[in-house]
Amino acid sequence: MTQNRRKFLKTTAATSLSLGITMPNLFANQHRKKEKRLGIAILGLGGYGGGQVAPALLETKYCYLAGIVTGSPEKIPEWQEKYNIPDKNVYNYDNFDSIADNSDIDIVYVVTPNALHMPFVLRAAAAGKHVICEKPMDISSANCQIMMDACKKAKRKLQIGYRLRYEPRHLKLMELAKTKPFGKIQSIDTNFSFYGINNSNWRFTDPALSGGGPLMDIGIYCLDACRYATGLEPLSITAQKYKTVMDKLPGMEESIFWQMTFDDGIVANCGTSYVARRNYIWISAEKGNYGIEPAFSYRGLVGKIKDQVMEDTSTVRQQALQMDAYAQNILMDTEVVASGEHGKQDMIYIEAIYEAAETGKTILF
Amino acid sequence: MTQNRRKFLKTTAATSLSLGITMPNLFANQHRKKEKRLGIAILGLGGYGGGQVAPALLETKYCYLAGIVTGSPEKIPEWQEKYNIPDKNVYNYDNFDSIADNSDIDIVYVVTPNALHMPFVLRAAAAGKHVICEKPMDISSANCQIMMDACKKAKRKLQIGYRLRYEPRHLKLMELAKTKPFGKIQSIDTNFSFYGINNSNWRFTDPALSGGGPLMDIGIYCLDACRYATGLEPLSITAQKYKTVMDKLPGMEESIFWQMTFDDGIVANCGTSYVARRNYIWISAEKGNYGIEPAFSYRGLVGKIKDQVMEDTSTVRQQALQMDAYAQNILMDTEVVASGEHGKQDMIYIEAIYEAAETGKTILF
Repeated sequence: MTQNRRKFLKTTAATSLSLGITMPNLFANQHRKKEKRLGIAILGLGGYGGGQVAPALLETKYCYLAGIVTGSPEKIPEWQEKYNIPDKNVYNYDNFDSIADNSDIDIVYVVTPNALHMPFVLRAAAAGKHVICEKPMDISSANCQIMMDACKKAKRKLQIGYRLRYEPRHLKLMELAKTKPFGKIQSIDTNFSFYGINNSNWRFTDPALSGGGPLMDIGIYCLDACRYATGLEPLSITAQKYKTVMDKLPGMEESIFWQMTFDDGIVANCGTSYVARRNYIWISAEKGNYGIEPAFSYRGLVGKIKDQVMEDTSTVRQQALQMDAYAQNILMDTEVVASGEHGKQDMIYIEAIYEAAETGKTILF
Repeated sequence: MTQNRRKFLKTTAATSLSLGITMPNLFANQHRKKEKRLGIAILGLGGYGGGQVAPALLETKYCYLAGIVTGSPEKIPEWQEKYNIPDKNVYNYDNFDSIADNSDIDIVYVVTPNALHMPFVLRAAAAGKHVICEKPMDISSANCQIMMDACKKAKRKLQIGYRLRYEPRHLKLMELAKTKPFGKIQSIDTNFSFYGINNSNWRFTDPALSGGGPLMDIGIYCLDACRYATGLEPLSITAQKYKTVMDKLPGMEESIFWQMTFDDGIVANCGTSYVARRNYIWISAEKGNYGIEPAFSYRGLVGKIKDQVMEDTSTVRQQALQMDAYAQNILMDTEVVASGEHGKQDMIYIEAIYEAAETGKTILF
């Protein structure tokens, strides 16, 4: 698999930029026309695609699982049967570009390892498809800009898979950043860590695919949450990284802590690790605290405002909310919430966190 | 008050070192002889002395509140009535040294502002009394050594008021550091913060008395807990400090975060602030997490080992446990748990945390 992916990484960037776009009629399919549901093809049938995205597409109102794109042919029969996917909507990485001619597919959801996001986003846009790209958007902010430019040129919408930006409790954090019911926000404490050091998935074993350790994978949620929980952008970043088990997590950090200052005197202390188990964001404002713990899981989140538990919305599936919001953005031609600009900015901060940890310097914005 | 204290701060160090010690008979008092209870005099009748130490002494088995030493004469009548304290056991800061002749008093508990700990500990030891000194032990590690030397020379025992070193859940952390039921400890996440920025107490307004901000006052609990939750001493310290409201907390930090590494690859992320509300310590080991949250309050602590809540011991009063343990140390001439050596070492780390925050450098031990 890794070899295949690597090969694609090398070859796709060069071949995918011929933007001979055909603009598909969104409602050519009579079935979808009636229901106004957009067809999504999942590209990358790994754990997240199979365990989260596909099941979520059984719950969505404005989009559905119409096709798959995979480098693992052995996975195809089960997916076809489980999700009733016709042969004509199944692609491999060689014939993927011909998806341009398939009017069943309006959106490609790129769920590959991080380093493969760019080539597939470029190819999907070149094929005239709207694109959801999983977070982190890429392994470099420079690539993010290339991806944004390609989607813009193709006049296709690009959404980054920040599922929590559509989750009710996290939406509440965004609201409270605006309404400030407890006065000025002064401090944020957030950490997302799990015990991943012994995992054999590419995220823990292949830095060429992951682009980094827990910061790229899960710490990005803490970073992103600090941005939307304040409604502000960081002014400075310091960071410290650690590696104590030398034969695991090759080429990536084991734990990283970082601190950010924001306008208005807000200070955030953030952490992420593959040798810990923590999962929270707490905001301290002048007259009270609020937060979510667990904060970043797929389900089971518990939000609290002062000592009041937030409304229980535990039955919502974040990925369904995310994809339905995106489908509506396309149907109504409105701005996406988790935009490429947004994903690129997170990558800029991630690069700054790594630089701060490497150099010991304070990175200013 | 502050003026009085300052005056004492300047004059006591010079006058208190004439160690003409009389060794009182511990059981001269018939009442105490029967019950083997040592007499404690509280020196400093502020919030902690009055709100915590004195009530705790109604619950202790091996010691009791025998006397008071105060610079606030207006407080005397209420204390005498409430705790049945005879006139002969009431001292002011001028006649305090004559406590040497009072066989009712075996122990002086120094609960003054931090900067006054040294002069009063020296005077108490010179008067032949055992001494409990509230934490932080002093505002400088150099002073701590002077205090230890004085008590040693006077052959009196010195205990530092680390109430949590006697608390059942925190004792459990110490035990788990030894038994390691979940394999290697890999990571500690701890923070003790409260919203103190608008408080008018000396801890928040008078750096000459406090010697620092939340780190000296409450962050010290996180620091100390990292030591006993690992059974190890830090190898390196980095730190970041913040000040955003310039007209409050004069001459002290508002928030400070610090990171420590320990042998065995353990990394700790610690925080303390007067503009936040956080109160926890969580330890991640290879095969499970455990911790306490709230962790550092006087009561209401909740300890968890994996998902099991630790035995409820919420009725214990930490200060009573601490003082009874100390009284037994004296009665049986055994080593105290929270020793001067220990308090001094915390001050050395606190000085390193401040230095790391000032310079941006990693302080190595």
